[in-house]
Amino acid sequence: MSRKLHLNAFLMSVGHHEASWRLPESDPHASWNVKHFQELARIAERGKLDSIFFADSPVLQGDPGRRPAGKLEPTVLLTALAAVTEHIGLIATASTSYNEPYNLARRFASVDHVSGGRAGWNIVTTAGADAARNFGLDDVPLHADRYERAAEFVEVATKLWDSWADDAVLADKEAGVHADAAKVRAINHRGRYFRVDGPLNVPRSPQGYPLLVQAGSSEDGRQFAARFAEAVFTAQQTLGEAQDFYRDLKQRAAALGRDPDGVKILPGIVPVIGDTVGEARELDAELERLISPEYAKRQLAERFNLDPDDLDLDGPLPADLPTEDEIEGAKSRYTLIVDLARRENLTVRQLIGRLGGGRGHRTFAGTPVQVADTIEEWFGSGAADGFNIMPAVLPSGLVAFVEKVVPILRERGLFRAEYTGTTLREHYGLPRPANRLELSKV
Amino acid sequence: MSRKLHLNAFLMSVGHHEASWRLPESDPHASWNVKHFQELARIAERGKLDSIFFADSPVLQGDPGRRPAGKLEPTVLLTALAAVTEHIGLIATASTSYNEPYNLARRFASVDHVSGGRAGWNIVTTAGADAARNFGLDDVPLHADRYERAAEFVEVATKLWDSWADDAVLADKEAGVHADAAKVRAINHRGRYFRVDGPLNVPRSPQGYPLLVQAGSSEDGRQFAARFAEAVFTAQQTLGEAQDFYRDLKQRAAALGRDPDGVKILPGIVPVIGDTVGEARELDAELERLISPEYAKRQLAERFNLDPDDLDLDGPLPADLPTEDEIEGAKSRYTLIVDLARRENLTVRQLIGRLGGGRGHRTFAGTPVQVADTIEEWFGSGAADGFNIMPAVLPSGLVAFVEKVVPILRERGLFRAEYTGTTLREHYGLPRPANRLELSKV
Repeated sequence: MSRKLHLNAFLMSVGHHEASWRLPESDPHASWNVKHFQELARIAERGKLDSIFFADSPVLQGDPGRRPAGKLEPTVLLTALAAVTEHIGLIATASTSYNEPYNLARRFASVDHVSGGRAGWNIVTTAGADAARNFGLDDVPLHADRYERAAEFVEVATKLWDSWADDAVLADKEAGVHADAAKVRAINHRGRYFRVDGPLNVPRSPQGYPLLVQAGSSEDGRQFAARFAEAVFTAQQTLGEAQDFYRDLKQRAAALGRDPDGVKILPGIVPVIGDTVGEARELDAELERLISPEYAKRQLAERFNLDPDDLDLDGPLPADLPTEDEIEGAKSRYTLIVDLARRENLTVRQLIGRLGGGRGHRTFAGTPVQVADTIEEWFGSGAADGFNIMPAVLPSGLVAFVEKVVPILRERGLFRAEYTGTTLREHYGLPRPANRLELSKV
Repeated sequence: MSRKLHLNAFLMSVGHHEASWRLPESDPHASWNVKHFQELARIAERGKLDSIFFADSPVLQGDPGRRPAGKLEPTVLLTALAAVTEHIGLIATASTSYNEPYNLARRFASVDHVSGGRAGWNIVTTAGADAARNFGLDDVPLHADRYERAAEFVEVATKLWDSWADDAVLADKEAGVHADAAKVRAINHRGRYFRVDGPLNVPRSPQGYPLLVQAGSSEDGRQFAARFAEAVFTAQQTLGEAQDFYRDLKQRAAALGRDPDGVKILPGIVPVIGDTVGEARELDAELERLISPEYAKRQLAERFNLDPDDLDLDGPLPADLPTEDEIEGAKSRYTLIVDLARRENLTVRQLIGRLGGGRGHRTFAGTPVQVADTIEEWFGSGAADGFNIMPAVLPSGLVAFVEKVVPILRERGLFRAEYTGTTLREHYGLPRPANRLELSKV
């Protein structure tokens, strides 16, 4: 069987482009309208995509004056989408810095039960002092501390998911024995960040664990991904950089004794699709015209730890920027943006235009064939196991991808014509994890 | 308009009776099967009940060897039920001791958005050292401390729900202004237990706040209910006690300046329904035969802080029991059980039989007319604004209630024939709370 692409639709409000809500077609209240997301989930499922994904942070992100900023809590949203779909995988971000492992492990196990094995967890440590200040802290914990806590969090969560053996429930009505109590066990975790007795209060879920996803590309992030992640979402601007990242992460996984094929790497792309090159460019230009540059400049300045007045819209980035080490959140994204601006000699205004669609993910306007060509090129040259599709405008961008790009990929034998499994892990060709509680008995 | 009853279905696994899973009709895997609960929600909605409710604790409760112990996380479960229903209210328990207010406020606001205004939160402080040990603690915090934290938790949650004005979203595409930023405000809460900056990252939900429900009947619990609760679930064994409780709680609410009618009081009842008295008694006896007395004795001993050997199945409760003050969780339930055993001179075995169905809630076997008579009597004599219906066996007990008891209540003019509102608050005749952020501007 030839190697197949994996396609995830990364969904956000009415599109990834920050100005998408201003288009005539967009419902500006869609961010908190479950019907909007149910429609998107059905479109993605019609395209036989592997999964859909929602990013999140426990803070109001961005300026609510300028774009839709609030959103539904993603485990709630996934559950609402599970009810109206049958096959598509359902992935959401949740923070290890601002949750308790007992609660979060149970919530993902519950989504996995309710969806019949379609849950995935994008594990994030959550950058930003503003999020920290919603949880009793004055500032964000240090990057390295956040990752150390994240590793212990995942350890606790997996122990909890293993705290019921797969065959624990006997349901012997005659004898009055519901479960084999020896197969439902305390975990008695004692660590630096957490003490958790367990067991979990829900049986092991269809997938054993939700699919474990990760999206950090800093040194800490890569090492974390190599250790735990089964799918990695990443922002890569050039084929060369994507190949370097791909090789590096697979090597790190192998060095930790994992099968490199058990870590699927999905760079993000923001395709702006038109039937002709001209049409695609026109849509792209229309979106760029709708960006409010002063607002975008403020956001960029914040990312760079600068005052907005230090940025000149029609000049280049200042020469004297902080190093990645001085940035406490979204480290690798920071470097990617600086590199992009310098490599292409962009003015601040031009950089804002390039970031407007995908915040550092690769944006390009083109025809369905051009999009399919790029996907095939990256997939075939050691840069990707699949793609994180980030439509600039929703639902229309997802419809265009599913109706126009997917059929080309299918014709070329790169993508499935039908679902062959029922769980998210099966879509990604990943095994159901063995229960370590059961192994430890041997 | 005559005063109408409110009916909530308190749903648990395959029934409140601890042995219900052993009946031939019961699916012993139903506790984590969303289809089971979707069926129950549809039955309750067919009966035009106000709401359904799921209790919860972040710990594995009870002996998984003896009865279905695990369950789905209730905000996930409510969301899955919202997707297949249109009118019925959806209430779940969540703990103020083991959640962060930012996360929980957002989750309930999200459920309220997704359900179109049907979410309710049963606010609990969570008793038990076993739950504490899933969250880094050695023992449960003191009863009074838990209630103090709960009060601050609700204060933070309501501030967050008010952090977006109802008219904050302008969606002005032309001007590029999504929300009026002055109407999305930080809360900057600084308290003993929490520091939370806000604003919440989701707009104000259809109901403003989810319906606030409370179920503790201790001194601390009553005072908390009088201050915050809009519906109160309570266990009352006799009409006299129920009247005392009802009067006390309404007076406390009035003393705090609230409209006593804004606090709906719903005692629990566990009806075991048969077409004849004989049939009802036969079902009751069958359930009692299926109880495992040694297991139930262990549970009772735990509640009493005793060794199981201190309890003689065929003797009375020991004379020398702890006082309510010495009990750190479920205080008023403890006293209710001791009083019940002493008032009726029950042996431990008889007491176990009486508790098997409702854990202290009023259980009785009877015909539909007898059940309706009791409901009418309590409703008409200052003991209840409605009832928390706790079927001993599910789905059959709920079907019997909806098909046989509800029509009698409807004929007597006590209960609605159709839903007249769309939100949970409308079903209970309760107002949508004003936004205090908006008030504070005046």
